Amino acid sequence: MTVTIPDDLVEPTGGRIVLIVMDGLGGLPNPETGLTELETANTPNLDRLALRSALGMHKPAGTGVTPGSGPGHLALFGYDPIRWNIGRGVLSALGVGFGLQHGDLATRLNFATRDAEGRIIDRRAGRPSDEENRRLVAKLREHFRAPEGVEVFFEPEKEHRLVLVVRGKGLNAELGDTDPQETGVPALPVQAQSEGARATAELVQRILDQASEILKDEPQANTVLARGFATYEPYPTFEQRFGLKGRAIARYPMYLGVARLVGMESLPISKTDEASVAMLEQNFDDYSFHFVHFKAVDSRGEDGDFAAKVKAIESVDALIPRIEALHPNVLIVTGDHSTPSAMKAHSWHPVPILISSPWVRPIDVPGFGERACMRGELGIFPAAEIMTLALAHAGRLAKFGA
Amino acid sequence: MTVTIPDDLVEPTGGRIVLIVMDGLGGLPNPETGLTELETANTPNLDRLALRSALGMHKPAGTGVTPGSGPGHLALFGYDPIRWNIGRGVLSALGVGFGLQHGDLATRLNFATRDAEGRIIDRRAGRPSDEENRRLVAKLREHFRAPEGVEVFFEPEKEHRLVLVVRGKGLNAELGDTDPQETGVPALPVQAQSEGARATAELVQRILDQASEILKDEPQANTVLARGFATYEPYPTFEQRFGLKGRAIARYPMYLGVARLVGMESLPISKTDEASVAMLEQNFDDYSFHFVHFKAVDSRGEDGDFAAKVKAIESVDALIPRIEALHPNVLIVTGDHSTPSAMKAHSWHPVPILISSPWVRPIDVPGFGERACMRGELGIFPAAEIMTLALAHAGRLAKFGA
Repeated sequence: MTVTIPDDLVEPTGGRIVLIVMDGLGGLPNPETGLTELETANTPNLDRLALRSALGMHKPAGTGVTPGSGPGHLALFGYDPIRWNIGRGVLSALGVGFGLQHGDLATRLNFATRDAEGRIIDRRAGRPSDEENRRLVAKLREHFRAPEGVEVFFEPEKEHRLVLVVRGKGLNAELGDTDPQETGVPALPVQAQSEGARATAELVQRILDQASEILKDEPQANTVLARGFATYEPYPTFEQRFGLKGRAIARYPMYLGVARLVGMESLPISKTDEASVAMLEQNFDDYSFHFVHFKAVDSRGEDGDFAAKVKAIESVDALIPRIEALHPNVLIVTGDHSTPSAMKAHSWHPVPILISSPWVRPIDVPGFGERACMRGELGIFPAAEIMTLALAHAGRLAKFGA
Repeated sequence: MTVTIPDDLVEPTGGRIVLIVMDGLGGLPNPETGLTELETANTPNLDRLALRSALGMHKPAGTGVTPGSGPGHLALFGYDPIRWNIGRGVLSALGVGFGLQHGDLATRLNFATRDAEGRIIDRRAGRPSDEENRRLVAKLREHFRAPEGVEVFFEPEKEHRLVLVVRGKGLNAELGDTDPQETGVPALPVQAQSEGARATAELVQRILDQASEILKDEPQANTVLARGFATYEPYPTFEQRFGLKGRAIARYPMYLGVARLVGMESLPISKTDEASVAMLEQNFDDYSFHFVHFKAVDSRGEDGDFAAKVKAIESVDALIPRIEALHPNVLIVTGDHSTPSAMKAHSWHPVPILISSPWVRPIDVPGFGERACMRGELGIFPAAEIMTLALAHAGRLAKFGA
């Protein structure tokens, strides 16, 4: 009789949990000061919180593995991202609110520009505006005739990005990208990566060819490139697994998409970080789990701008008192991965985490930062275990065994 | 769509990795000073390196498990030693450069002395010289007649040790050792440990009996004892898994054998530690992964000589600048297990590790030692994850998911 942890121990009632994610929070030291972005930032509120929190470091996808945002958030939500590996196409489709069905094949598309010889000369078609994107998608929808036996959906995302969903029987997503990842060469054909994907590869090639045919007279967006083919397998929901009614607040569709993937409700896209907190304040008591996503920390890390990442962290810190004032029983502050500004990219380094609750063993290292968290009671642990800790601190996990 | 980590994320290009192994590096404190051998050693170069390294402790084969050299090195090379458990016989056969084929049965033999009543009175036949060893093996080869249906090979190793390889169909290595591990008693018969190994047990008994018959007039080496039966299953290679062209440098055949087992190239046996570094300097740029093995640290630990183990560590430290001068992108210094001189043996204690790269979070504890490593950013982690970290630091791992 095996027990699935924590699912089989979940109690129906308990405290309210707030998960604050500063995207890309973890960093590396500034060579001049020896301090990371988080250690450099002036964060009086987080520092105060850290004094009565369990501290630690989590690994989103295992030792040495750099996670994308999808796996990073899945892990934070308690889903082992290796077991629940999700394709980018599915992530994007959910991100734009498309109602995926079990077995749907989804992929990201880019509008792109190719020259008369068929070579890709701009992989992003001059980055069209969102309005232009919608016009192009409307044109595709108007003229496209789906091949026999399948339904085909084009969904606008942002700028040069759209989503293609194919609905039909026996679709197999083991397909290579057509995006060549460089210019001056033609798009790649849709390649089946296994015997079983051959029919789907031919089908998708015809769909992409027809889309390019419809777009051929456009001055810039005269073709599409595909990457991240994936089929959709519904996840056991957050509520089924953890008995939590979850709600997601974010400024970018993708994060809402991952939250919806596990069955959380998502609020409309927020315009500012302050608006995100205002959304959290509304109907707070109607949900037992709140996920609030702050993007700028990661963006400034990816820019390679140490000082700007520091400022982005400080700006989230300033919002903490409003979140505390809602009196969540458990308040978690962490990131979905590290984005050291020295690397201008996501990295594999463990991510600092703070779990504020009455039931903690604080340490004498002051402040919220990588060094303090390395010394904390939680040690270095897999991110997918964060939800188990959250449930425990919220009084939502039964004792295991007698 | 499951992902094997790190294999499925490996990129074809990236930085160069050097893995320095001080065999048996980990130790226990001297009761008088409270410092381990590594902490006692005067290691200015390693201490300087530690200030810009990721530090941690690794567990070669799991909590509380004392590994032999084979499992210890397999783990360092990224192969979980429990999954990839390798018999000593196979290890020895590869160590002497024997070209094992899939399904070959290999075992270590000792030349031994038995008395007129058949009792083993010296399990090592007075430790013959290597030349005497070769003479005895030549005698076996000359007179031995292989049983019907199999090929039999005797290969000299060192002193009293040789290797027996049996090549044939359906050989089963679930056989007990014949070495009784004590003197004054007869050798054990070859015992099948499973039903399926019965025919192989009978076959091997006949082979060992014939060998003893050939040796019976020798004054000392008048019989052989077998231990560590194993069949050979080829491993997925280092290059297949990690995209690395690996090279091994060591002063003892066994370490070269483990490296070859995973497909690394091995240089000729080095005569001194200085010669090992000189070998590393040659054609350095032709390889993306270099493994250099230093044996004396373990040997002095096994002698129970704390001061001599300290000196052995210091002598490797003195070679570090020459290794640094080659400018590897990632330089790793660790051991394959602990060999505390207080225990005169391998032990289960985690092993200090240092990974020098630009992408680290140094701590303020100075020096390279057990205490510093216990506080380091890597925490305590399975040794088989070291290669994932090495690949990450070398820029050789793609991001997992979008």
